[in-house]
Amino acid sequence: MNIKVGKLIYSGKAKDVYETDHSDKVVVKFRDDITAGDGEKKDSLQLKGYYNSIISSKLFEVLEAEGIKTQFIELIKSGEMLSNKLEMIPLEVITRNVAAGSLLRKFPFEDKQVFEPPIIQMDYKNDAFHDPMLNDDISIALNLATKEELDSIREITLKINKTLKEFLANKGINLVDFKIEFGYDKNQNIVLGDEVSPDTCRYWDIETCDVLDKDLFRKGECGVMDAYKKVASMILDP
Amino acid sequence: MNIKVGKLIYSGKAKDVYETDHSDKVVVKFRDDITAGDGEKKDSLQLKGYYNSIISSKLFEVLEAEGIKTQFIELIKSGEMLSNKLEMIPLEVITRNVAAGSLLRKFPFEDKQVFEPPIIQMDYKNDAFHDPMLNDDISIALNLATKEELDSIREITLKINKTLKEFLANKGINLVDFKIEFGYDKNQNIVLGDEVSPDTCRYWDIETCDVLDKDLFRKGECGVMDAYKKVASMILDP
Repeated sequence: MNIKVGKLIYSGKAKDVYETDHSDKVVVKFRDDITAGDGEKKDSLQLKGYYNSIISSKLFEVLEAEGIKTQFIELIKSGEMLSNKLEMIPLEVITRNVAAGSLLRKFPFEDKQVFEPPIIQMDYKNDAFHDPMLNDDISIALNLATKEELDSIREITLKINKTLKEFLANKGINLVDFKIEFGYDKNQNIVLGDEVSPDTCRYWDIETCDVLDKDLFRKGECGVMDAYKKVASMILDP
Repeated sequence: MNIKVGKLIYSGKAKDVYETDHSDKVVVKFRDDITAGDGEKKDSLQLKGYYNSIISSKLFEVLEAEGIKTQFIELIKSGEMLSNKLEMIPLEVITRNVAAGSLLRKFPFEDKQVFEPPIIQMDYKNDAFHDPMLNDDISIALNLATKEELDSIREITLKINKTLKEFLANKGINLVDFKIEFGYDKNQNIVLGDEVSPDTCRYWDIETCDVLDKDLFRKGECGVMDAYKKVASMILDP
């Protein structure tokens, strides 16, 4: 597709979004910036944007093949993804297959407790209020979504979880939990946006139990980019 | 009823529960202790237990008259309530008709914003984890209740809210929000337990907008017991 990249319309913690000469399409540039702890810990890791873009693209393709709508169109160059423009819903939709991270600090679950069915949690994407956890009544009162939209998001999320969990298990990766974001496309469909990468998921190596995601950065451990690179090679391996 | 009070079986922040010579009945003693801020602020206010017991008893009677099951049997003496024994569900069920308190610190609502329908929020009654807010998936994963029980609790809570809001409005009180707790009786019915008092509700005088509840204590203001006494006289006034 012949696309001209226009001006920056949104800059997040790790990605920039640019308008294009097609009003319904944007280019998402994955930056090398990495943050944790509500933005308090920051760094830049060479090639992180590249790896996240190829991992996300692959997983979006896997989801599309199962009939799940995503914003992904194609990778146009290193770290740059042509995407359908979405009107984003300010929800961080978190799916948990195994107890880890903040869930263990907030609730008395056993470490690595398996959830069947998975837990779905929705946080309000709002920096000023530190992304508080919502319930349906509060989401509706804040006009973030209707009850029907929340139910649709949960249904799509469960399908995404099932698809990704199976795909990644076949590649040797345990999908512990992940955060996704949705938006509306020009036809008012609820569509998966943002990214599905080691920045936004917990991936554990099924054989070695090694952590292969941003938790390495959160905990100040070495080998963050080696882990991201390993995830890329595991999932892109035909 | 001829009742012999037995040994203490539970001591909360402001009430003690005693077994009796009837295995399915307990005596709830309302103490004068008052706490706020996750138990950090503490005091004892003379006659608080007495006023809370008569206010709760009256409101339980109002609810029973609308067909809502409560643990209340009768006031046996000052500050002491004979009650059906319940196996308590560790949920703090909070209903909000108007935005106030912690909700405003956690979410970007307008101060005094009116909620129609009301917001129902469930917190996990767990001191060690500071009573975290739940969603249904987390409540179920923690084995606190099933989906059907959570739906029943919400349905009963909405009926309680409607009944109390109307009754109190007729007495000149705006029911801003309130926290209730439920338990199972010997027949496995979900029954309203605990108390419904100025310790557990926000009551605003409809005419003067005066605060008539524990918020006065939280904010270190004077006249806490005058407010409780006023609530008692407003709602007991025939």
